[in-house]
Amino acid sequence: MQNVENTIDRIKELMDSDTEQQLRDELNTYHEADLADIFQQLSPEERLACFTKLDEEKAADVIEYLPPQLQVEILGDIDESLASRLISKLPHDDAADVLGDMEEDETETYLEKLPEKFSSEIRELLTYNEDTAGGIMNPLVLTVAYNMSVKDAIDTIRIKAEKENMDLYYVYAVDKHSHLLGVVSLRTLLTSPVNLSIADIMSRDVVKVHVDDYQGHIADIFMKYQFNALPVVDLYDHLKGIVTWDDVQDIVEEETTDEILTSSGIVTDLGDDDDDVLTGSIGHAIKARTPWLLITLIGEFLAVSITSKYDQTFTALPVIAAFMPLLAGLGGNIGTQSITLMVRGMSTGQITLKSGWHYIWRETVTGLSIGCIFGLLVSLVTWGWQHHAELGLIVGLAMTLNMTIATMIGTCTPLILKKLKFDPAVASGPVIATTIDVIGLAVYLTLVTWYLISI
Amino acid sequence: MQNVENTIDRIKELMDSDTEQQLRDELNTYHEADLADIFQQLSPEERLACFTKLDEEKAADVIEYLPPQLQVEILGDIDESLASRLISKLPHDDAADVLGDMEEDETETYLEKLPEKFSSEIRELLTYNEDTAGGIMNPLVLTVAYNMSVKDAIDTIRIKAEKENMDLYYVYAVDKHSHLLGVVSLRTLLTSPVNLSIADIMSRDVVKVHVDDYQGHIADIFMKYQFNALPVVDLYDHLKGIVTWDDVQDIVEEETTDEILTSSGIVTDLGDDDDDVLTGSIGHAIKARTPWLLITLIGEFLAVSITSKYDQTFTALPVIAAFMPLLAGLGGNIGTQSITLMVRGMSTGQITLKSGWHYIWRETVTGLSIGCIFGLLVSLVTWGWQHHAELGLIVGLAMTLNMTIATMIGTCTPLILKKLKFDPAVASGPVIATTIDVIGLAVYLTLVTWYLISI
Repeated sequence: MQNVENTIDRIKELMDSDTEQQLRDELNTYHEADLADIFQQLSPEERLACFTKLDEEKAADVIEYLPPQLQVEILGDIDESLASRLISKLPHDDAADVLGDMEEDETETYLEKLPEKFSSEIRELLTYNEDTAGGIMNPLVLTVAYNMSVKDAIDTIRIKAEKENMDLYYVYAVDKHSHLLGVVSLRTLLTSPVNLSIADIMSRDVVKVHVDDYQGHIADIFMKYQFNALPVVDLYDHLKGIVTWDDVQDIVEEETTDEILTSSGIVTDLGDDDDDVLTGSIGHAIKARTPWLLITLIGEFLAVSITSKYDQTFTALPVIAAFMPLLAGLGGNIGTQSITLMVRGMSTGQITLKSGWHYIWRETVTGLSIGCIFGLLVSLVTWGWQHHAELGLIVGLAMTLNMTIATMIGTCTPLILKKLKFDPAVASGPVIATTIDVIGLAVYLTLVTWYLISI
Repeated sequence: MQNVENTIDRIKELMDSDTEQQLRDELNTYHEADLADIFQQLSPEERLACFTKLDEEKAADVIEYLPPQLQVEILGDIDESLASRLISKLPHDDAADVLGDMEEDETETYLEKLPEKFSSEIRELLTYNEDTAGGIMNPLVLTVAYNMSVKDAIDTIRIKAEKENMDLYYVYAVDKHSHLLGVVSLRTLLTSPVNLSIADIMSRDVVKVHVDDYQGHIADIFMKYQFNALPVVDLYDHLKGIVTWDDVQDIVEEETTDEILTSSGIVTDLGDDDDDVLTGSIGHAIKARTPWLLITLIGEFLAVSITSKYDQTFTALPVIAAFMPLLAGLGGNIGTQSITLMVRGMSTGQITLKSGWHYIWRETVTGLSIGCIFGLLVSLVTWGWQHHAELGLIVGLAMTLNMTIATMIGTCTPLILKKLKFDPAVASGPVIATTIDVIGLAVYLTLVTWYLISI
């Protein structure tokens, strides 16, 4: 399905034209990911009407693909016994996420209705912080005893994988106390002589994460080793679950969004429940956006207080005020470019603290080069337009200095923040803009004042 | 291995202390991803010295994890016959990438040395644009005939997967002309009765991509359906290869970087070979960074020309000039917050053109609320500091208007760009900052002039 919009129009038509059986048939032929897309664009009533027409298996699959708030909304709207049947069909990690997002008493109601084994496994998952490996992992892992033969292992897998809704990437070898001893890829398993022991073919250097590892760390490990799945162990190396690449994909998207929003001065970890700046309450959005604006305000008042000392300069040559936004604007832009390059380079691992010096030097040369080009341009335009050669020279010189300084500040700030163990993305945008305003304007007004004194 | 820095120090010590065998043994115990990390932080000489101590299998694995420029560097530095042996051990897609990044005559030299079948497969891969499915895919796909029994299929896979270095995620069912007919997960295959036909158990609704599909589209499909691998077909539905999630992970990182850099006004698709702003030549960096700075310059000259018309105002009340950076700075910041939220929301799919209206309204309310808070704050501070109630009122009112307008512009611009089929991220930063400077200052100076006329 390439065009969701058309499909939605078609579904709405079918709903209006009262051809229920046809709507039911058609909805059940769509892929669950497409249905999740479509449902997000329907009104709550339409969504519910369509959802209840899905077969139970399909409905459970769709739940997996929906964003958390819609999962909770739909499960709250449908019949409670259907809802618990659907929840029991979800993979453990998704079921725990859905239940974790509900009100506490609701969660308890559902947990009591679910099959006992499932329910106690979910209870264990709910004890982990949702941003750690324990909160993300699926506790159902395909394991075999390390001393089994390949033939027995393949038979075991056939039975286990059929019985449980289990991801199949690697097979983990454990001893009888569930200690993780090794890993075998399905490919190795299928292509090894059947009479060998698992211990003979398994890799003993297992890359693994700990239940308490934070999601950012897990994403880094995935990115580095490019595995499809990683085993999760506790303090004693007991195998507790696996994290798969589709979980990590969600983490990476979330972390990237945090990085981008943080760079523009939006606080992403206010620590309240309502944690989405885009879809949460407006009160939440205001709380997330004001802290760095307030700091900008303080910084800009500093710029105002410096600038206001030059009121005699403005009286003597009022046109100089008009060039202030030009200088601040271009300084801010080139500084933002530098800070963006640095923050991104650090988050993809291209720039390290050790290689930082190289980039400071590189950016300074770049900033100076661009500064000279723009300084010259601005000089010539100002001279031609205002018929005032000295003014052109001052504005041009201020521009060159300003752009060079802005590049250097933009390059050093994230490195310094990282060195001090802060997140380099923290409010890089607002901070750079304000700093440039303060320093850039001070440089410019000093130059102007020197000139006015000298004549 | 958690601490790469320590390992590097240890390796350097071993190199200095002339204990070659120990260095060799130790290097060969590290995971290839760790070695790739370490090699990136060594000098070219150290890198080469360490690389040549690796076993051939390990060396080929490390090549896979290295960034393109280092792949080419190392292969160019080592013995040519070793280099072609290493290349022939790489997965097809990686081998094609490495060869594609070399000088044309070098590529040809290696292609002639490689085994004929491998070489002709690589030649085919090299004909595709490297940003499309054809340029990313691995042409070795695990296929079975759709009319085979499950038992025969499992036997076939055992043989095929052993013979070739092949990814094992799904098994694709084809007819004798290689038309893609269906897909079976390994899990289904292993758990189905052995006498069933593949046609009985395969899913016929195969989500697939076309050889000419661009990488951004492929990443979107992966993100949506959360598969581990997708089949790639040509115009006639012949199965040509598979794209796996680790390829997509690289694409997503690249596309995210492009989105972030584009937002800060850096041109990411200059179309020359030297395509990395961070590691390419300084000339390239200047070319990538100046276009939007030039546009900013033109916009800011507009701001200058508007502002310069108010020189009598500046002469009458010079302190008003000092408040210009405050207004422009905060307007720019809140506008950037809005544009960042919108661009990110659109790229994660949370905001569509249809739901755009909702966000315009939401952001306007947010902007007005924050604008009122900051307007009040600025009024009071200015009044208290300058002992000038009217000035406080004017600056505060301008602040409220400015922040509200900035939020609205920041919200609407990406939606309009998207509607006009431009990339919403295009220079959103520079454009917003300049527009706010022009509009914000015009509003402020108009208010001031009205006030001065009225007294």
